[in-house]
Amino acid sequence: MTAKDTIRVSEIFGPTIQGEGPLIGRPTVFVRTGGCDYRCRWCDTLYAVLPSHRGEWLPMTPSEIMTRIEELSGGMPLLVTLSGGNPALQPLGALIDLGRTRGYGFAVETQGSVAVPWFAALDWVVLSPKAPSSAMTTDWNAFDACLESAGPNPRCVLKIVIFDDADYDFARQASTRYPSLPIYLQVGNPAPLKAGEFCEWPVDEADLRRRLQWLVGKVAQDRWFAATVLPQLHVLTWGSKRGV
Amino acid sequence: MTAKDTIRVSEIFGPTIQGEGPLIGRPTVFVRTGGCDYRCRWCDTLYAVLPSHRGEWLPMTPSEIMTRIEELSGGMPLLVTLSGGNPALQPLGALIDLGRTRGYGFAVETQGSVAVPWFAALDWVVLSPKAPSSAMTTDWNAFDACLESAGPNPRCVLKIVIFDDADYDFARQASTRYPSLPIYLQVGNPAPLKAGEFCEWPVDEADLRRRLQWLVGKVAQDRWFAATVLPQLHVLTWGSKRGV
Repeated sequence: MTAKDTIRVSEIFGPTIQGEGPLIGRPTVFVRTGGCDYRCRWCDTLYAVLPSHRGEWLPMTPSEIMTRIEELSGGMPLLVTLSGGNPALQPLGALIDLGRTRGYGFAVETQGSVAVPWFAALDWVVLSPKAPSSAMTTDWNAFDACLESAGPNPRCVLKIVIFDDADYDFARQASTRYPSLPIYLQVGNPAPLKAGEFCEWPVDEADLRRRLQWLVGKVAQDRWFAATVLPQLHVLTWGSKRGV
Repeated sequence: MTAKDTIRVSEIFGPTIQGEGPLIGRPTVFVRTGGCDYRCRWCDTLYAVLPSHRGEWLPMTPSEIMTRIEELSGGMPLLVTLSGGNPALQPLGALIDLGRTRGYGFAVETQGSVAVPWFAALDWVVLSPKAPSSAMTTDWNAFDACLESAGPNPRCVLKIVIFDDADYDFARQASTRYPSLPIYLQVGNPAPLKAGEFCEWPVDEADLRRRLQWLVGKVAQDRWFAATVLPQLHVLTWGSKRGV
């Protein structure tokens, strides 16, 4: 094992259920890597993004990570979700290969800004281009390169966080650009933005409920029946608690 | 059109999103039929079950129902969810055939007590055998007949409402009996039972949240990673309001 294979890990936790997107409700262990090329305004995991938290990110080898996953899952294969930060910044190929030989499945959650060959080895590639409310700008060439890296084997989907009409329009355009990709619209949660970096953020459930109603109304009115509309289940269930 | 093709309809509404099971978050129009061979203790749609509501169930022809679905969806094909009551008591085959020719997809939600040939024409057959808390008893021969009627074409899944350990054990046994069927565990909502037939039932979100945490904990502890755990999204979003 060389330094180039070392993965910066913010946290490994589970089994819990996936709270978002196409795998909502599925038991999974999360491997959250540290470091991100984005800084979304409403990011809810700044502890895995900001360089000031770098000291908390443990360098781990694929084998060390796999040992921890197997401890948590009792050696029973399940879905491993690679999240971040942007996990595409980390050399995760060896971990995926190792896990696969032991029967584990893998999904990645990434914004689609960095293409890596190991996308092709995944079961699921959940691509979340960031809408205007994030204050980030999508490089669609980089995004296309991610889809190309993934190739035909993983199931690739779009998952877009929606706060307002501009975000919604962005999602519509993304869907037009990639008509063959299933699209998941995720209700935005403003609590992390309001709370700031170092606060636990209280969940305003009535607000999230109104946002979900609004988004369902938009989709229904526009007859955009190819979209799937979901909240973050873990936020409704566990709030801002880490590691569930 | 003869009387034998007439369908007893409790309500038709949408487009809204499916709140449960494998199609959670998907835009759909619901066709809720009237009449049921079961009377689950915690039923949340007694107005489509109890004979005392029979006068509210409109006899409609397949063509009349399809016209209403097309009005609601603006003629844009989407998923139609056939629910009840027990929709298997109604002659829905002609409606499905008609909708298919116009590009609509169809899912049924049924307890699996009555097998009908039109199951084979569906995209999804969501089978919800009722666990002990319902006070109903499953006839597994009838259930097997439903799967046989469905045949190879629709995607068949199990969806089981869980209130307690006995329900959970029932779900485990059902899953052992049908290892090839994906299984969705749905958090039980005691509000309708507490409220009684004629009351709007207030949603106790904290209680539902605790129930979801409990169920996720059970699945994680038992390493039952093939199960998907979901709440009723529409209950968290719209409470007991009808027609959303």
